Amino acid sequence: MSLIFSFPDNIDQAASLAKEVPFQLGGMEIHHFPDGESLVQIKTDVKDQDVNLYCSLNNPDSKAMAIMFFAKTAKELGAKSVRLITPYLGYMRQDKRFNEGEAITSRIFASFLSQHFDSLVTIDPHLHRHKTMKEIYNIPTQVIHAADAIANWIKENIDKSVLIGPDEESDQWVADVAHRANAAYTVLTKIRHGDKDVEVSVPDIDQYRDYTPVLVDDIISTGHTMIAAIEHLIETKMKPPVCIGVHGVFAGNAYKAMQLAGAGKIITCNTILHPSNEIDLSNLIAEKLKRWG
Amino acid sequence: MSLIFSFPDNIDQAASLAKEVPFQLGGMEIHHFPDGESLVQIKTDVKDQDVNLYCSLNNPDSKAMAIMFFAKTAKELGAKSVRLITPYLGYMRQDKRFNEGEAITSRIFASFLSQHFDSLVTIDPHLHRHKTMKEIYNIPTQVIHAADAIANWIKENIDKSVLIGPDEESDQWVADVAHRANAAYTVLTKIRHGDKDVEVSVPDIDQYRDYTPVLVDDIISTGHTMIAAIEHLIETKMKPPVCIGVHGVFAGNAYKAMQLAGAGKIITCNTILHPSNEIDLSNLIAEKLKRWG
Repeated sequence: MSLIFSFPDNIDQAASLAKEVPFQLGGMEIHHFPDGESLVQIKTDVKDQDVNLYCSLNNPDSKAMAIMFFAKTAKELGAKSVRLITPYLGYMRQDKRFNEGEAITSRIFASFLSQHFDSLVTIDPHLHRHKTMKEIYNIPTQVIHAADAIANWIKENIDKSVLIGPDEESDQWVADVAHRANAAYTVLTKIRHGDKDVEVSVPDIDQYRDYTPVLVDDIISTGHTMIAAIEHLIETKMKPPVCIGVHGVFAGNAYKAMQLAGAGKIITCNTILHPSNEIDLSNLIAEKLKRWG
Repeated sequence: MSLIFSFPDNIDQAASLAKEVPFQLGGMEIHHFPDGESLVQIKTDVKDQDVNLYCSLNNPDSKAMAIMFFAKTAKELGAKSVRLITPYLGYMRQDKRFNEGEAITSRIFASFLSQHFDSLVTIDPHLHRHKTMKEIYNIPTQVIHAADAIANWIKENIDKSVLIGPDEESDQWVADVAHRANAAYTVLTKIRHGDKDVEVSVPDIDQYRDYTPVLVDDIISTGHTMIAAIEHLIETKMKPPVCIGVHGVFAGNAYKAMQLAGAGKIITCNTILHPSNEIDLSNLIAEKLKRWG
């Protein structure tokens, strides 16, 4: 039976995954020293085993060395293979040199992970300019889609919904969820002036005035895109919008700020541990892993 | 002429190094996004250039991705070579599997840096079980020694000194500085019960009662080793000790705690930016680089 190890944040999810697939749960410890160095200890024998590491890659800089230490040490100790199960995959948005001399971090980070792991499983990575994971990963990758689970949640919880993509990048994605939820949809237009300064255009939403607006995006990070959309919808006298993200990164006080801006409800999938996790994707990961082996 | 780029902390040192060697100063920006990702932008043309990156590797986890992004991007943009100038080299202390299943992070981190840089210059890396950098680095490395500069500082600033190594690991190192300073020396014996619990044995220091004790160590990190030594010396009615570290990491409140424990003075070399930087090693780096090219 394959082994599964988990970073502290993901222990509950790894445990429930272990039961379903099934995997044998392995023990590991991560120690962060006061000087900013980390140490990883693998406490279960990995010799000749297929090893999985469950680690969501929000805050990737703080975890990158530790996952490298895990993967290298597992191999040194005789692991047959080391797979990364990362429900949220970081560093997918800097997918081109937007300005001269900039690093294309999506590609470099992919090469870093490809070097240390034999394969990778993730949920809805932010594929925008890269159309497939194969463009940047040279290990086998499996992508799980949350669209069905989100569509089901919307169908079960909202009577008459209009799905709204907060910007053009979310277009295809929102269309897909709307189709599965059998709901109407539209997309706002965003102009970004910097990390924290986002302007939203005014779409014609008069026809949806008695609908519950459902803002859907793949990643909620600083929340500024969502907040601009919430404020815009409130200005246009729509009902308070339900905000759904696959990945609730919620940098800084993003969650609180969205609540203050007037979000009716904030819902995320459990790819990053957060009180808003209302859509459980564990069974989707389990199914994918059962099929993929 | 070669180019030198610098992380924010090291900009002044890189600028003075650039004048001495000489290097041409390059511009770079590091942006830390609120979601814990980083972006590096190289603002000077590196095509066909020999490139140096000046970055002290205290808090290495917070810098590792950024230095990887720099190195990879410099290469993508046509740099002929990329050298890391890192006055303080992190991850040198976990130099064996102290407990079963632990990562040997010194070796894994060395392999990470060796992969991204063509060569490396550092100052007094913590070589204990690894006797030379070659054991773990497979790129050319140059090591600069601070012993002479420290010995000179002691000769110029303290009349009648006895050098004291706070533990056995510092023995060889303190002996060397004492020899160069033409000073007496002794070494305390340390028993470590954990990160923060260090017990110090009682050496026979009666013969040095009218000397100024000078505690010398390569790295001051949590400060617990130094503090235990300071407290011990104060108990034995020695004068308040002068504490000298090559590398002042000063994790958490280490600096303040050493002052409170009764340190007479705390002096470090300028390998990590800190108010205690009183021994300037820039000229040593410049000399090494002029000779090495």
